[in-house]
Amino acid sequence: MTPLPFANALHQAASQVEKVMDAMLPVLQGPEARLFEAMRYASLNGGKRLRPFLTLCSAALFDVREACAVRAAAAVEFVHCYSLAHDDLPCMDDDDLRRGRPSTHRQFDEAAAVLAGDALQSLAFEILCDAATHSDPYVRCELVRGLSVAAGAHGMAGGQMFDLASENERLTIGAITRLQQLKTGALIGFSCEAGAILGQASQQSRQALHAYAHDFGLAFQITDDLLDIEGSTKELGKSAGKDVAAGKSTIVALLGPERARAQAKILSEQAINHLDLFDEKADPLRQAACFAIDRRA
Amino acid sequence: MTPLPFANALHQAASQVEKVMDAMLPVLQGPEARLFEAMRYASLNGGKRLRPFLTLCSAALFDVREACAVRAAAAVEFVHCYSLAHDDLPCMDDDDLRRGRPSTHRQFDEAAAVLAGDALQSLAFEILCDAATHSDPYVRCELVRGLSVAAGAHGMAGGQMFDLASENERLTIGAITRLQQLKTGALIGFSCEAGAILGQASQQSRQALHAYAHDFGLAFQITDDLLDIEGSTKELGKSAGKDVAAGKSTIVALLGPERARAQAKILSEQAINHLDLFDEKADPLRQAACFAIDRRA
Repeated sequence: MTPLPFANALHQAASQVEKVMDAMLPVLQGPEARLFEAMRYASLNGGKRLRPFLTLCSAALFDVREACAVRAAAAVEFVHCYSLAHDDLPCMDDDDLRRGRPSTHRQFDEAAAVLAGDALQSLAFEILCDAATHSDPYVRCELVRGLSVAAGAHGMAGGQMFDLASENERLTIGAITRLQQLKTGALIGFSCEAGAILGQASQQSRQALHAYAHDFGLAFQITDDLLDIEGSTKELGKSAGKDVAAGKSTIVALLGPERARAQAKILSEQAINHLDLFDEKADPLRQAACFAIDRRA
Repeated sequence: MTPLPFANALHQAASQVEKVMDAMLPVLQGPEARLFEAMRYASLNGGKRLRPFLTLCSAALFDVREACAVRAAAAVEFVHCYSLAHDDLPCMDDDDLRRGRPSTHRQFDEAAAVLAGDALQSLAFEILCDAATHSDPYVRCELVRGLSVAAGAHGMAGGQMFDLASENERLTIGAITRLQQLKTGALIGFSCEAGAILGQASQQSRQALHAYAHDFGLAFQITDDLLDIEGSTKELGKSAGKDVAAGKSTIVALLGPERARAQAKILSEQAINHLDLFDEKADPLRQAACFAIDRRA
């Protein structure tokens, strides 16, 4: 079970970030209204908000002002939400359900889901380059760079393409790990890195957070794949059993659930070990690494 | 007819920008290869490259280093190309033909067209925030801000949504003008603005270029709509007669070809007048305003 204080901290961070996200997506009248509605639907729909949580926690390590950290966190989450809206499209993973509700193209239409995703991506960069995110433009450029690389062809978009191309192919463990590193790892990595960038942290701290994020991301993904075969659609709020149906190679399919679970545990412990140079301020990140493998959804 | 020196200048700028775009999209091996292929297909396919031309010309007004200007120009063109790949999708304008070749989703598939567009957008921001684009990070942030606003919900993506929502609706001239300003005007505006940002130009110069881009964009769009009804698919390299078939409101549909053509001419002249504070360095921009209405494709 997730300890209550951690669940509370996660929930509190989610509320904080959602408030900022909400304010950035005004409810409009007129011809632009529908795009903003679709952007709101795709992003203000109560996810776990784990990526923004990682950004807030890593920023807290370096005493970054919360008002700044929460903006970077919102940018990360907007990119994550845009990717979900696109990944759910019929031409991609073709999923009708997301976070317990119809996915964006089911609620609106495919064009709205594509455009909402496109505009959420633009919005993320608009947020990061704004002086309200950090007073030093060099820091803002570093944020833009980090997010653009994590989201782009050498990151999330590349990973999704790799994933689609690998359906019904039997990948090696190495290939699956690389796929996951691109598809989900890169953005999780940036979620942690963003705090260090905002805090103008030392190279050593950045490397530690980078290593943490790497192992965290893989543990998180293995758990996702376990939940896909073991969880119910109701618990998950998204369609269960999709990976098997799509013939996707996963660590779980390759190693079996038992060994995959053990592997996730090792990765979670490794992630925590990477945080040794930080004091108790890093406890929320340590708890997040436990949550990554203990969660039920 | 377009005067030969202008055609040469446009062609030369296109070559220059394409060289940089090409270098940014390496031909890869392995699982990411297909995404890069789709990104190359969507962007290295010989358009007029008018937006990058505007960036290079506006940058030249302020003696910006060409190596910097051409990077900003490439970023603008990547965003334009991403929007074409998405707009051509079956769920949007459903167009099989682009620049005389199958559109990206016809050559690859829909998923590849969506992801190539997504990754091209990320790449544009990655380019702008890089120190190679400008040594001053404040300038780079301004570029990121300008492009994100032009591409996003209050710009290009908003305009495309507006356009789709208006099919078979009879819009007023005011509404059509606003639609075009969002859909194509915002990015054309940034194309010119980028040069002024790079050149750290005076407010007066920026306003002049902004006004130029506004009138240029509308003249360009009216001409596009005229070509759509008068040009052939072969000349255009994209399907002709699409607007009428889709029941789209255009200035041409509302005013008729004659009055629309006269309106485009007035706008082109107005655009040129806005450049009065610049010397002969602005001649290529003046010629571009003539080209906008004289072109055959």
